[in-house]
Amino acid sequence: MAAPPRPDPAAGSCPLPISSYPTVQMAHGGGGRLSRQLIEGMLVPALANEQLARLHDGALLDAGGTQLAFTTDSYVVRPLFFPGGDIGSMAVHGTVNDLAMCGARPLALSCGLILEEGLDLAVLDRVIASLGAAARAVGVPVATGDTKVVDRGKGDGIYINTAGIGLVHPRARIDPRRARPGDVVLLSGPIAEHGVAILSVREGLEFESPIESDSAPLDGLVGALLERFGEAVHVLRDPTRGGVASALHEIAGQAGAGIRLEETAIPVREAVRGACELLGLDPLYVANEGRLLAIVERAAAEEALELLRADPRGAGAARIGEVIADDEARVTLRNSIGGLRVVDLLSGEQLPRIC
Amino acid sequence: MAAPPRPDPAAGSCPLPISSYPTVQMAHGGGGRLSRQLIEGMLVPALANEQLARLHDGALLDAGGTQLAFTTDSYVVRPLFFPGGDIGSMAVHGTVNDLAMCGARPLALSCGLILEEGLDLAVLDRVIASLGAAARAVGVPVATGDTKVVDRGKGDGIYINTAGIGLVHPRARIDPRRARPGDVVLLSGPIAEHGVAILSVREGLEFESPIESDSAPLDGLVGALLERFGEAVHVLRDPTRGGVASALHEIAGQAGAGIRLEETAIPVREAVRGACELLGLDPLYVANEGRLLAIVERAAAEEALELLRADPRGAGAARIGEVIADDEARVTLRNSIGGLRVVDLLSGEQLPRIC
Repeated sequence: MAAPPRPDPAAGSCPLPISSYPTVQMAHGGGGRLSRQLIEGMLVPALANEQLARLHDGALLDAGGTQLAFTTDSYVVRPLFFPGGDIGSMAVHGTVNDLAMCGARPLALSCGLILEEGLDLAVLDRVIASLGAAARAVGVPVATGDTKVVDRGKGDGIYINTAGIGLVHPRARIDPRRARPGDVVLLSGPIAEHGVAILSVREGLEFESPIESDSAPLDGLVGALLERFGEAVHVLRDPTRGGVASALHEIAGQAGAGIRLEETAIPVREAVRGACELLGLDPLYVANEGRLLAIVERAAAEEALELLRADPRGAGAARIGEVIADDEARVTLRNSIGGLRVVDLLSGEQLPRIC
Repeated sequence: MAAPPRPDPAAGSCPLPISSYPTVQMAHGGGGRLSRQLIEGMLVPALANEQLARLHDGALLDAGGTQLAFTTDSYVVRPLFFPGGDIGSMAVHGTVNDLAMCGARPLALSCGLILEEGLDLAVLDRVIASLGAAARAVGVPVATGDTKVVDRGKGDGIYINTAGIGLVHPRARIDPRRARPGDVVLLSGPIAEHGVAILSVREGLEFESPIESDSAPLDGLVGALLERFGEAVHVLRDPTRGGVASALHEIAGQAGAGIRLEETAIPVREAVRGACELLGLDPLYVANEGRLLAIVERAAAEEALELLRADPRGAGAARIGEVIADDEARVTLRNSIGGLRVVDLLSGEQLPRIC
């Protein structure tokens, strides 16, 4: 993708194609092409600094000689409760995972609540109990918080923002630009479960075997990888909004290299595959909340895969492809009979408010 | 105030008087008694940890030997633009000030946007340009961010969450429990300007001299105070939601001491006093966004006041009262003829969505 124009940040002039999208669209939040245009075309230039321009899951900071990771996410998922999780547990897992993708273990979380007037307090209580339990399970304190209330009809029950501070592992050197031809792409488990679980509830679908969100913390898995392989782990990314396809697309662009995937190697549970067919979704683009992509040195790949599989959270891990030389930084998928297709960035999103 | 019951955090049972307020009320976000009930009765027990229980403007963390402050605030102010500021500049000042109240200078901010579908992109552009400019003026990078979009009618244009990390001044020992009888209460400038500026826009009021929000960063003022007086600065607090009255009420409770204010010493601009009378507001309860309360050792008080006044942001500083022995931790106000009245915590709020 061509770099967007970089206007004078102080001028406040909008570099987006105003004529085509003069207002915010749902797809601006979908993690696809429109999201990227908004972020790269307006937000990053206005807030210009090196950290933000890296567009990683979090920022790396030096605090008096200590390497910190810092990240934030707002959660607007609906419904608030779904099979395998709720907005509270997700607000912990999502932010813990963003820290983990920077190679950091969580030190503290913040919690900012935006509550809609009229929300049932019992619902809030249930969400906060779940958020607290998820944080205790990870062993990270929710150290600071804020609560705002907005008028009825100006919210949707509960929105949660969590920011997180993490301590970067001394041997971590995670950077999408470190992905290089020959590196192997590992995936920690079957995909598309979070997105399909959410959509099933929304659409009132019932499947023979219930499909649960994969929402889970990944700090343990990442800690084990880094402890064992250190710098040989080049890139980590959790394929949330926009799924595996969008995450790899972003990495390929930042690395200036291609990524070749083997379709048959990508784990998708049978029930999830069936649901995706029914719903008209491509699982490659569906959100995950407890899976990670690791791009590692070829020499470490087999052992790293074994290490992932030895952990319950990585039991379904697979080697799904590799980084290849490609000036156009394409992500391509080879199917079972050898055909190749380009995996493009979606312009919108398949599922609004999935996280 | 009696301590609320502390239920088993895992149980998710609601200790609030469900029968009287089974749903979220606007006043739960107002910074008064209902806010405190929600926070102390439900949120803190569910998220139980020592940091959160301190109920300070931010948390203090040890990161590999470096003392950090960590804080978060969501901004839901309406309208988005008002005399003296907008939601973007406020989202920087508010969080920078919360860090400053912990004795910390800002190291990095995060920015989480919740945008409503249909928002004019030019409005977003203007807000983000202002947010970026405010951050650059303070010299703090917006290091990480997130953007979510919610359906039309499920938001109100733009909500912003900023979290902040700060480096604690080596000589800072800010703690509300350090306020002790004999300490002097300083205020950095005239009060109630933010709240009155917002309400004037909402109500379409026009005054002879326009009233502007005091929204401003206080990190410089705090840095100067700490550099000069170190541990002699016992408490810092920015009197935002709920105003000077609520801030001092909270401090008195935590310190287990009383606070005696001199009504005639509390600076209120003439235009603001007039507007408050017209609007039926008590300026002591109206939000400020660029003022601080400092409770300092008596011996340092005069010099600290001079130091505040020497800075343009503290030009209107005044000595407004002192800490006194009082087991009931009351805040009292002595008027011009010597009468005393108790300054109580409001149960709701005077102005919803003021920040």
